[in-house]
Amino acid sequence: MTFAESPVVTFEVDHEGDPHDLVYTLGGAEARASLVPGSILDTSTLDCFAGKVTSVHDHVSEVCDPRCLNPQTGPFYIEGAEPGDTLAVHFAKIEPRNTFGFSTSVPLFGSLTATGFTAMLHQPLPEMTWRYDLDLEARTVRYEARESEAFYTLPLDPMHGTVGVAPALNEARSSLTPGDWGGNMDTPEMRVGTTCFLGVNVEGALFSFGDGHARQGEGETCGVAVETAMDSVLVIDLIKGGPRTAWPRLENDRDIMTTGSTRPLEDAFRISQVEMVHWVSELTGLSMMDAYQFVTQAVESPIANVVDTNYTVVAKMKKAYIPGCNPMGGIHERLKQLGAAYLASLT
Amino acid sequence: MTFAESPVVTFEVDHEGDPHDLVYTLGGAEARASLVPGSILDTSTLDCFAGKVTSVHDHVSEVCDPRCLNPQTGPFYIEGAEPGDTLAVHFAKIEPRNTFGFSTSVPLFGSLTATGFTAMLHQPLPEMTWRYDLDLEARTVRYEARESEAFYTLPLDPMHGTVGVAPALNEARSSLTPGDWGGNMDTPEMRVGTTCFLGVNVEGALFSFGDGHARQGEGETCGVAVETAMDSVLVIDLIKGGPRTAWPRLENDRDIMTTGSTRPLEDAFRISQVEMVHWVSELTGLSMMDAYQFVTQAVESPIANVVDTNYTVVAKMKKAYIPGCNPMGGIHERLKQLGAAYLASLT
Amino acid sequence: MTFAESPVVTFEVDHEGDPHDLVYTLGGAEARASLVPGSILDTSTLDCFAGKVTSVHDHVSEVCDPRCLNPQTGPFYIEGAEPGDTLAVHFAKIEPRNTFGFSTSVPLFGSLTATGFTAMLHQPLPEMTWRYDLDLEARTVRYEARESEAFYTLPLDPMHGTVGVAPALNEARSSLTPGDWGGNMDTPEMRVGTTCFLGVNVEGALFSFGDGHARQGEGETCGVAVETAMDSVLVIDLIKGGPRTAWPRLENDRDIMTTGSTRPLEDAFRISQVEMVHWVSELTGLSMMDAYQFVTQAVESPIANVVDTNYTVVAKMKKAYIPGCNPMGGIHERLKQLGAAYLASLT
Amino acid sequence: MTFAESPVVTFEVDHEGDPHDLVYTLGGAEARASLVPGSILDTSTLDCFAGKVTSVHDHVSEVCDPRCLNPQTGPFYIEGAEPGDTLAVHFAKIEPRNTFGFSTSVPLFGSLTATGFTAMLHQPLPEMTWRYDLDLEARTVRYEARESEAFYTLPLDPMHGTVGVAPALNEARSSLTPGDWGGNMDTPEMRVGTTCFLGVNVEGALFSFGDGHARQGEGETCGVAVETAMDSVLVIDLIKGGPRTAWPRLENDRDIMTTGSTRPLEDAFRISQVEMVHWVSELTGLSMMDAYQFVTQAVESPIANVVDTNYTVVAKMKKAYIPGCNPMGGIHERLKQLGAAYLASLT
Repeated sequence: MTFAESPVVTFEVDHEGDPHDLVYTLGGAEARASLVPGSILDTSTLDCFAGKVTSVHDHVSEVCDPRCLNPQTGPFYIEGAEPGDTLAVHFAKIEPRNTFGFSTSVPLFGSLTATGFTAMLHQPLPEMTWRYDLDLEARTVRYEARESEAFYTLPLDPMHGTVGVAPALNEARSSLTPGDWGGNMDTPEMRVGTTCFLGVNVEGALFSFGDGHARQGEGETCGVAVETAMDSVLVIDLIKGGPRTAWPRLENDRDIMTTGSTRPLEDAFRISQVEMVHWVSELTGLSMMDAYQFVTQAVESPIANVVDTNYTVVAKMKKAYIPGCNPMGGIHERLKQLGAAYLASLT
Repeated sequence: MTFAESPVVTFEVDHEGDPHDLVYTLGGAEARASLVPGSILDTSTLDCFAGKVTSVHDHVSEVCDPRCLNPQTGPFYIEGAEPGDTLAVHFAKIEPRNTFGFSTSVPLFGSLTATGFTAMLHQPLPEMTWRYDLDLEARTVRYEARESEAFYTLPLDPMHGTVGVAPALNEARSSLTPGDWGGNMDTPEMRVGTTCFLGVNVEGALFSFGDGHARQGEGETCGVAVETAMDSVLVIDLIKGGPRTAWPRLENDRDIMTTGSTRPLEDAFRISQVEMVHWVSELTGLSMMDAYQFVTQAVESPIANVVDTNYTVVAKMKKAYIPGCNPMGGIHERLKQLGAAYLASLT
Repeated sequence: MTFAESPVVTFEVDHEGDPHDLVYTLGGAEARASLVPGSILDTSTLDCFAGKVTSVHDHVSEVCDPRCLNPQTGPFYIEGAEPGDTLAVHFAKIEPRNTFGFSTSVPLFGSLTATGFTAMLHQPLPEMTWRYDLDLEARTVRYEARESEAFYTLPLDPMHGTVGVAPALNEARSSLTPGDWGGNMDTPEMRVGTTCFLGVNVEGALFSFGDGHARQGEGETCGVAVETAMDSVLVIDLIKGGPRTAWPRLENDRDIMTTGSTRPLEDAFRISQVEMVHWVSELTGLSMMDAYQFVTQAVESPIANVVDTNYTVVAKMKKAYIPGCNPMGGIHERLKQLGAAYLASLT
Repeated sequence: MTFAESPVVTFEVDHEGDPHDLVYTLGGAEARASLVPGSILDTSTLDCFAGKVTSVHDHVSEVCDPRCLNPQTGPFYIEGAEPGDTLAVHFAKIEPRNTFGFSTSVPLFGSLTATGFTAMLHQPLPEMTWRYDLDLEARTVRYEARESEAFYTLPLDPMHGTVGVAPALNEARSSLTPGDWGGNMDTPEMRVGTTCFLGVNVEGALFSFGDGHARQGEGETCGVAVETAMDSVLVIDLIKGGPRTAWPRLENDRDIMTTGSTRPLEDAFRISQVEMVHWVSELTGLSMMDAYQFVTQAVESPIANVVDTNYTVVAKMKKAYIPGCNPMGGIHERLKQLGAAYLASLT
């Protein structure tokens, strides 16, 4: 397979410019470029601090403007996309631009602290910053403790925390929030080899993404992953019409996945599971009750985030459990091959 | 290693008797037998229906007495156990007694339906029963649809849903409920090769277990796994004194794990993560904030159940990420070898 | 009306004895006395500290045994009570035994702090104790600040936080927990003039009560009301058979009320509202959907507690809105008159 | 007092026009008019159906465009308003324009049904519409059952469900959602005689309001109140600088009130209570812990809504409990008198 008929769009991002010139909402921003379906998008993303955290002595509350957190690359206007269509976005490459990443605690943010929503009378936990060295050869990240001399090594596992389209109802939502439009889902499943399906709410879809993580645990416990700027290649396609994709779906070579993003966490779980029951029913012809039963025994349910303004849960089903299924018309396999062909052409 | 000094306790369970003679609470029941620490317990458990579901035409609401759901094997009085100690229970064998299992829907029970607590005005979903054939050679379970002709095959993965001790404060809790005493956590991690650590609340601990599942998905979505009677071998030991085990911990060869069981689901997540932060801090010497940061990037967070009277979330950390750590004094490795030696002696 | 045919049971409580001799669970304790339906019960209750907090210098964590919090008066075996019956308990008198009350903060307890369930990494809030002077003539309580010289006066409004029967499923539940058996609901509606209806789960019902508050706000924000020992007179009756009272109901001269106790708080709300929809439907003959609509416009929904192991919400409906209704067969009016006649006889 | 120096702004709303010309977001819409602080705003609002429900045979899902629910009057640009300021809005008049109102059930919306967020496998509850006759002389609304011949009478109690400003972070939020910007809080406290305080997030504040209810219960159980178009008079003022109003506050002659709007419901409660603790501390000089204690005994905590995309809880404190307090510099009293003088001038 070649990507000969796939337009390649190279979109330059200014990593040194004024953060106020960047985009921080899904919806509410003008398109920065247009793509035709089937395009390969070769671009990059800033880290969630807009590059303002540069050492362990930088505190988010001091060096970042609260209006300039989690800048997005985009939005991109997808030619021909209309409400009810489904956008397919395959991640062919997500590679750290630098050999370091930062994580931080942020006052009144995170899952094990009082927050502005889980409001309490406690003083905030200490504000601290950690630097990680990324070994792009060995594919590791190195954790370094701040209050002792300890080091630990974890696998590099690059991903994008924020992937989405403009929301419905003329809403513009902060890039810090996930929902049925995607957004800041913060699931480690959004790694290379994954295709993300997003229901289109507005003409042109207005796709954007960002928030690269060199890795994160499930739940993103303290609220901040190993944050890094990324060089990323995406293959973007459009499924016209068909059943509406109510909540973001993911697919990789092993699994189909559904997501739910809301509060409380059990409702995020419920959404992801109802979506999986319906998807399995569609793929297999099982009745709703039969699919409910089958999913009960087969599903994996990793938590994505319990820190953002909505919490996210993922439901996963191995494709091997439903032999012969052809999710979303096989688009994942096709986009994966296009991406591979493009990347091969570069070397 | 041999188990020469380990007493072997064979505890017979009457699988054909009157369900009303069985035990359905943790706490509030007299000990059925005594064990010394270090014992090997060779016994069995009924399924959660007390064996009353025998075909797909049996509905739980018709064939089961609601007071006779989820019978427990035990309680066992552990000699020398006192409040503040920690009980260690290693699962050396969990093997289905039969070549079939059943799952059901239950009116107003499950995660994707109105319940007695998430009270609504809907009519209950249909009540149905599914039979699974277990292939103990191929290590598979076979799902058979009820409303079409479909079959699917899933891996056999036997486990115990309910494992616990008597609660604190003189409480007696239904075996349908999980909490800090263990109980009905319904995590698939409670499989062969796992050691479960439980804080002791009363003299003798009063350990019991049951609720065998041939397998289950994460979340136990419809509320009922592939329910089966089990033949099980446990190695039971006692850690005297030491830091109190506030919530059940698990360990296997790959991971250390913590659990939280409460509602809403984010609080179950919070408990499991706070416990993991503290455990990692103890094992590594990292400060609390340093451990919070490290756990954020390293933890896996699978949901266990979103159906029981409390919901359960697990936090997992690969032991390989913290080289040289020696969780709970190495008791997992020791009990594993004792169990293996005992099982080898039988063949 | 007289109470001539009503047996008067005077039950002495030892306010100076060993707290370990008292009862701290609903279920799991032997009956301390028997009553026939229709009895007048003249007795008293200790405060939730079992009398151990006697000055602002006493901290709960230092002076109280955690196993000895919230002692109950009872349990009382109600002759003839069987599962499925409904117990009716009218509060004719709830009067502070002393002219003072205490409130406290308790580490990791309360709604605006991390707790053992809403687990976080914060240090506990400061532990403090406040003394209130009760003016039983003026019917006021006097708040006195601890960290400044301020005083404020609030109305005296005595009530019982804990009222319940033994739970179902052979459970024994701490008197700190509310649920469908009643227990620690902590609603200020449980004042003089109120009749509480409780579904019976075990033979004899095993009714108990305690946790007198000179007053409390809605939600019991910090977790502790103005705690006082009480002299109380109750009129107790039994409704044989009939529709099961699934969750505690209350009635006074103005309102009918339903309660829900669970987590999260929206589920406690849902329970109370579903119960109200069904009760209004029974009282009026409205269909379920018509009652749902009517309740939507007419109900009041005060929060009771957001601090206990389950949260409690109350739904209230003015009886004047449904003219001619006769809740629970008019038992409230009858018990109210019996209580008044008994109290009149004492003076 | 006169309103001689108060500009009177009469803002005409087209009640017969195309619903697509109206505004359905807070933020994201151009100002329709400008006001100077101190203005009297005499205007009207459409009902939440944009007038499209006109008989009990009209179903929302059939007659309403989902993009055209809950139209707002405004937004109004308030001259001189800057982020950090506080807008004060006093409701001097809220009077139904018609002698009827409608309520409905809406599929998968409401607190006692599965929804898009509390996702389940149930079929929706029946869709129905109820008409209420409003007697503006007797000040009553008349409920009429749909499935029997019953009628009930409830007090007329007009209010606005939606009152707010543009959100922070460049967000545009649906008028169906409440949050720290106000919006669809759906509290019956937003009646005549109430002043609402809103923190300003953007230049000009961009105030709007709507969603008139002839009355509603607390919680808005089925999701829809007695919906009516309103003629309303507001007095609008601006508090420059000062401590930021983080969440909407209300004041009437009896109470000060705080609000919290989020999920789960306990977090909405927590926000409202933390805000009340801080407000009482400011008004009295009590320390935080002393205020926490005082609020615990004094607060009322009515639920506002458990149906919208965020849930809302109100905390209320009688001003009589803190004698001599002067909330928000006494602006409530001043705006109340301005409103009364204006209304008197019309008759």
